[in-house]
Amino acid sequence: MTEPTVLATFATPSLVAPDHQPAPSSNPLRLGLLASGSGSNVEVIAQAIASGQLNAQIQVVIYNNPTAKVAERAERLGLAKLLLNHREFASRAALDQAIVAALKAHQADWVIMAGWMRIVTQDLIDAFPRRILNIHPSLLPSFPGANAVEQALKSGVKITGCTVHYVELAVDSGPIIIQAAVPILPNDTSEALHQRIQVQEHRIFPLAIALAAQSDAAIYGE
Amino acid sequence: MTEPTVLATFATPSLVAPDHQPAPSSNPLRLGLLASGSGSNVEVIAQAIASGQLNAQIQVVIYNNPTAKVAERAERLGLAKLLLNHREFASRAALDQAIVAALKAHQADWVIMAGWMRIVTQDLIDAFPRRILNIHPSLLPSFPGANAVEQALKSGVKITGCTVHYVELAVDSGPIIIQAAVPILPNDTSEALHQRIQVQEHRIFPLAIALAAQSDAAIYGE
Repeated sequence: MTEPTVLATFATPSLVAPDHQPAPSSNPLRLGLLASGSGSNVEVIAQAIASGQLNAQIQVVIYNNPTAKVAERAERLGLAKLLLNHREFASRAALDQAIVAALKAHQADWVIMAGWMRIVTQDLIDAFPRRILNIHPSLLPSFPGANAVEQALKSGVKITGCTVHYVELAVDSGPIIIQAAVPILPNDTSEALHQRIQVQEHRIFPLAIALAAQSDAAIYGE
Repeated sequence: MTEPTVLATFATPSLVAPDHQPAPSSNPLRLGLLASGSGSNVEVIAQAIASGQLNAQIQVVIYNNPTAKVAERAERLGLAKLLLNHREFASRAALDQAIVAALKAHQADWVIMAGWMRIVTQDLIDAFPRRILNIHPSLLPSFPGANAVEQALKSGVKITGCTVHYVELAVDSGPIIIQAAVPILPNDTSEALHQRIQVQEHRIFPLAIALAAQSDAAIYGE
């Protein structure tokens, strides 16, 4: 028995048009990063800042899991880091209140969820209105929630991808800033697919942060 | 106020790999086409047959709307056509029973929904098990149902597309054969976007028919 045929085609090789490149702004964005895992997106954002692609500075990296590899990575990158272990908080709201306090203490203006596996509460959203971004490994609105890569693979779609969006209370909702499409290949594994999606995450996340800072007034009609 | 930033990026320019090109099979597929609108996909399938890309013949074009432009198109292409006006049938099942009878009378083996705007019933599915294909103007599972292009535009996604899939009873479900991704551009209109999606529909639909004929045994594990 041969494998099912698996096909995806793309209309356009790349759509990051030159006029969408963010203009440098005078004041660096002050970012607070939230991460639960390895923090590869933290590193990519730090690199984008170092290379001048993103005019920003990382005020603090907050993580919720004592064994998360992002701690070591932040250390190596010389970034301020803070463990707020969700197991030590009585509720989601209590954790988010501590996060808000820490972000404010570190003078962060933007909250960047770089692989943040906790469900956010109104407390965090109210403290940073229209200033919280998340990256999700699917082409939303397809496959929100946990295990998005596995969901896509199991469903039989031929194209998936990743999405950077503003965070609202409902999981993986909120205005979309950038998406990138990624093909699902014959005999793809969840690991191989996740890796190819991450390559695209690393491309679009720094750009999305810059664009959000530049254009969020427009998106929200201010 | 400037327009919201609209961005999409694509990992791969094209994924119709050479080894996915369908091999010619000895017996032409005998297609019954169902259409409700202009029938541009009917024309594209006829062209793919004429050019030798698709080894098939169109047995009949069935349409449900007396004013559908597909009638004129079928006439011009010299295709057998048949009006089965849904308003003249007491139920969806009754319409589908008439469709099945007509398809069998015209010796169609495959049912190709080329812009078919009626909800199918079990009668049609049972009569052509694993032999009904549909094209839908979104990257399913996002935006099933009517007005998929408008739904995508309104939702703020940056990437949409089209999907050819086997038909199951639930609307716009069933195993996916091919998808194509299409960017949503700044200041896109529903008409402009629909047109760009149709360009991709016309690319993938004939290929999907050939691939389905070739690989459906594999997909269904027969």
